[in-house]
Amino acid sequence: MSKSPLRLGIAGLGHVGSEVARIIETQGAHLSRRGGRDIVVTAVSARDKNKQRSCKLAGVAWVNNPVELAAHKDVDVVVELIGGSEGVARDLATAALKASKPFITANKALLAHHGVELASLSEKHNVALYCEAAVAGGIPVIKTLRESLAGNAVKEIYGILNGTCNYILTTMRETGRAFADVLADAQRLGYAEADPTFDIDGMDAAHKLAILSSLAFSSPVDLSALAVSGIRNISLADIHFAEELGFRIKLLGVSRQTEKGLMQRVSPYMVPLTEQLAHVEGALNAVFIEGSAVGPLTLIGRGAGAAATASSVLGDIIDAANGGAPPAFGVSVANMKAIKSLPDSDSIGAFYVRLMVADEPGVLADMAAILRDARISIQSLLQKGRNEAGPVAVVFITHDSNEKAMADALAKLGKMPSVLEAPCVIRIL
Amino acid sequence: MSKSPLRLGIAGLGHVGSEVARIIETQGAHLSRRGGRDIVVTAVSARDKNKQRSCKLAGVAWVNNPVELAAHKDVDVVVELIGGSEGVARDLATAALKASKPFITANKALLAHHGVELASLSEKHNVALYCEAAVAGGIPVIKTLRESLAGNAVKEIYGILNGTCNYILTTMRETGRAFADVLADAQRLGYAEADPTFDIDGMDAAHKLAILSSLAFSSPVDLSALAVSGIRNISLADIHFAEELGFRIKLLGVSRQTEKGLMQRVSPYMVPLTEQLAHVEGALNAVFIEGSAVGPLTLIGRGAGAAATASSVLGDIIDAANGGAPPAFGVSVANMKAIKSLPDSDSIGAFYVRLMVADEPGVLADMAAILRDARISIQSLLQKGRNEAGPVAVVFITHDSNEKAMADALAKLGKMPSVLEAPCVIRIL
Repeated sequence: MSKSPLRLGIAGLGHVGSEVARIIETQGAHLSRRGGRDIVVTAVSARDKNKQRSCKLAGVAWVNNPVELAAHKDVDVVVELIGGSEGVARDLATAALKASKPFITANKALLAHHGVELASLSEKHNVALYCEAAVAGGIPVIKTLRESLAGNAVKEIYGILNGTCNYILTTMRETGRAFADVLADAQRLGYAEADPTFDIDGMDAAHKLAILSSLAFSSPVDLSALAVSGIRNISLADIHFAEELGFRIKLLGVSRQTEKGLMQRVSPYMVPLTEQLAHVEGALNAVFIEGSAVGPLTLIGRGAGAAATASSVLGDIIDAANGGAPPAFGVSVANMKAIKSLPDSDSIGAFYVRLMVADEPGVLADMAAILRDARISIQSLLQKGRNEAGPVAVVFITHDSNEKAMADALAKLGKMPSVLEAPCVIRIL
Repeated sequence: MSKSPLRLGIAGLGHVGSEVARIIETQGAHLSRRGGRDIVVTAVSARDKNKQRSCKLAGVAWVNNPVELAAHKDVDVVVELIGGSEGVARDLATAALKASKPFITANKALLAHHGVELASLSEKHNVALYCEAAVAGGIPVIKTLRESLAGNAVKEIYGILNGTCNYILTTMRETGRAFADVLADAQRLGYAEADPTFDIDGMDAAHKLAILSSLAFSSPVDLSALAVSGIRNISLADIHFAEELGFRIKLLGVSRQTEKGLMQRVSPYMVPLTEQLAHVEGALNAVFIEGSAVGPLTLIGRGAGAAATASSVLGDIIDAANGGAPPAFGVSVANMKAIKSLPDSDSIGAFYVRLMVADEPGVLADMAAILRDARISIQSLLQKGRNEAGPVAVVFITHDSNEKAMADALAKLGKMPSVLEAPCVIRIL
């Protein structure tokens, strides 16, 4: 090793931060070979100095305010593992880049909200901004889009980006238990947060998709352009109908270049069982990319967990050691081009719809009339069982239809006196 | 664009070379944004200047001897798409690196045979050597191992690395046609070479696995350490038995770190249907990596074809434009450590064995005695049909057994008078 050691300041010593520090402590020789120089943690910041951790941090400086790491004389590279789009994480990012210190983060919220601003700072100060761990845990999708597929025009990217939702949907299907029940279990086991809103309503996946879209389409990160819905309304009945129809329900982030603009959506989707992603189960994540040259490319791996996330952080650290510094989002900010969003009125796709209806004559005829008037044609229809005392499920799959027309038709269907619950609609991939 | 254009010299204008040039000609604006500078082809070399090609090459200099590209005054980066481990390709690689020009290649044979020598040259002259297109076509597995997983100790890597073999095995299973028949068709359709030896006997996959092993385990590329066998002896009967037993037969390259050394093997394997790779069909390739931090990671995509291979070459070109230059095999040559090979006598695994035997009393007893004496225990056994006039298939799956003991037992089984054909053995993943 002729080069001087690379000295890291780590902000945040939760599961991921502790694991990064532990691997650096225990795999030092390996990391030195990969980075061409020693990698050492010289300074850290965390709320509780005395908490039991897996890393030793012998001889490491503790600073009270994480933002001080940016100016710390013994820190060459700042690693931010605190989280949150504002406050300390944002201040630290700004300070590190302004101090021309490479900044490595796992913070998807920070990048989804302030990605362009931080990328500008990194260019202005000629210093790298790395974020592999911000999306899909250990899956190297950031680097793949930023570097490996740089010669491609990406046509479409979609993925299972939230492990909590995938775990819940998989467990519902495998155990036949209801959403609320599985969610409660996941919370008890630590797979879901005490407040699960962020995961199950799709915002976590949206942050990740906004970052991936920018990388895929060389456009500015723009969280506001995404349509977002979650899995709260997915019932066991839908999961069973999906299987019967040859699908599996997954919460997907989908970003697709169409002739009329960029479609970006986080939503439950019916994924055909013939697709690799239909078989990605439990807490795994997966990303599918269709590129103009590479064709279809699928990456599958652990989307969360201390070790898998640490793997991505360490990859970025070794990049910093080797001095690689491509633009954070694949192109410089000046070279980003905003892409018009596809209006819902131009968005086309097939839909699965489940209606709970009173088992009485004429219901189908009324339904069919509403769909006909909205110019939505039905590809297949299932009605299961008979129950004169209560609701029965009527399930249909449409041919390709317009989002707006579908929304209007659903509103009308929901108002039919014989439709006893709000209609459940799931897009088909 | 404040930087000067990156000027490429391309050696070899076959399918891949022409596609790389065509994309540079037609997607210039896109590539300039990704590379932060214009990317232009300034010089080329190919056998036939007048051949009809998809690229225009207007104003491009032609040189007769590809090696001249290394010294060409208008060439900053040399792209080698000729192939072959010796001769012009090797001379060009050497000349380019000695001239301190980044060298980009899709040549797996060159790297499998001379990888360490070329990596040394690239370090000595402080210039990058890129080879993403040499393994698994458009799948970014080189970069993933070299950079993204740098913080991991890789435990195991295996993959479907030869699209021709995977196409043949898939087609045999789907159509029920025999190996020779499907191969002849594949040759007629251009999926297989006129001389298919290199593909179907496993040497193509072996070149790729030797490169992946070096990247995964930070060891010198060492083709001679691999045990290699192909798919010539796989029969339809084996494919059907595999399905019945819950497996699919794939030609895999497998490299695994064990306590007693590194196991590196190209061979047909029975892949459990529960594995993602069992469902990778046709000409697709796939790689599975188990890392100490990332856990399991699977990459699936096109392993060949002009466009997919060009995608990888272009990714390397954009890396060169951005100035990234990690060591070619993830660590410097000085930091590579040779790893002892696992001797066959220490190699452990389960086996599928099919014997074609005369349908007469006592055969099973004789077989069982040979296996008992070799200390090989049987997990399950199938005998299909009865045929007093000819051979019947006896299929068994062993518990974990020693490679050497199995080879010895097979030799003895093959010599039994009632065993009418050479035994077919397939390893179980």
